[in-house]
Amino acid sequence: MKNRIITISREFGSGGRTIGKKVAEALGIPCYDRELIQKIAVESGFHEQYVQEASEYAPGGMLASAFAHGAAGPTNEDYLWKIQCRIITELAEKESCVIVGRCADYILRDKAHCLRVFIHADMAFRAKRIVEVYGEREASPEQRLKEKDKRRAAYYRFYTDLKWGRAQNYDLTLNSGTLGIDRCAELIRQLY
Amino acid sequence: MKNRIITISREFGSGGRTIGKKVAEALGIPCYDRELIQKIAVESGFHEQYVQEASEYAPGGMLASAFAHGAAGPTNEDYLWKIQCRIITELAEKESCVIVGRCADYILRDKAHCLRVFIHADMAFRAKRIVEVYGEREASPEQRLKEKDKRRAAYYRFYTDLKWGRAQNYDLTLNSGTLGIDRCAELIRQLY
Repeated sequence: MKNRIITISREFGSGGRTIGKKVAEALGIPCYDRELIQKIAVESGFHEQYVQEASEYAPGGMLASAFAHGAAGPTNEDYLWKIQCRIITELAEKESCVIVGRCADYILRDKAHCLRVFIHADMAFRAKRIVEVYGEREASPEQRLKEKDKRRAAYYRFYTDLKWGRAQNYDLTLNSGTLGIDRCAELIRQLY
Repeated sequence: MKNRIITISREFGSGGRTIGKKVAEALGIPCYDRELIQKIAVESGFHEQYVQEASEYAPGGMLASAFAHGAAGPTNEDYLWKIQCRIITELAEKESCVIVGRCADYILRDKAHCLRVFIHADMAFRAKRIVEVYGEREASPEQRLKEKDKRRAAYYRFYTDLKWGRAQNYDLTLNSGTLGIDRCAELIRQLY
């Protein structure tokens, strides 16, 4: 595979998606983020909202999972994960691109030439951002961030058996709060 | 404090020290690495070798530590840690510089304007490097790397209560194995 892929994992509110879009624009390649959810929804027949939510939860509790895997076969989440793996692999085969989220770094680990990036920022920076930019309710944005972080970490852990946000899983991790969103985008562009 | 400090934490064999020296040279500022050990040795009266080793072990086991702190007062390691904190703080007050290792990112967390960097690389890259560059014995360099990683993580955890290598502790983490040592140095220099 000759295409070069940039995968961006990110903490909620850190500006990872914005950075992905900026990098893609500067490089003249596509950026897949919400488009991935749409593709997975179309292919699976599930509603977009369901796909979005399913990909933010690690499947069931341990007990639920044991029952599901033992008795009832693969869960909906497992089905969606397989579709997600296939779609991401196909995109990487088709063209150079930026892929935001969806464990793309892991899915493409042995299949593509990837620059694996993780974007994070401190709580205060992200709390301010999700209220101002995403229009989240102002009541306790910190609590919302903690929940999101926990879910993303659990989902990543469940499917990859790796620790989300561990420097060693990436080529590059950047603190968008201290470095600034534009500078992060510029650094990634340079490294490409 | 107006000085600007670059702190570099690094996995053994990742080239973090080399990167620190290159950055410092390019910026025309000093780089403190082994010089720190010497300073701590002079100030404490302990032998350099002892200082080096003490700063790679988390003090005692839990039991030893409980005894030491309960009955016999601070350990030698605690004494060295205090001197280390003071020397690093004084260096940061004196001038802009690069400081490699010694938990400098944590020691200076509220005291200086720091760019906090972590350098890592995969096992194969580091194993090759410690044999070729450091002249380590060739027998199982991987085992030696694992031990060193474990010690550094335990030491960092003991004194900072933070997880070594967690992206969120740094402004920037770089994989010197995939990005290359020179490119890592260049990126840090640019960000300064």
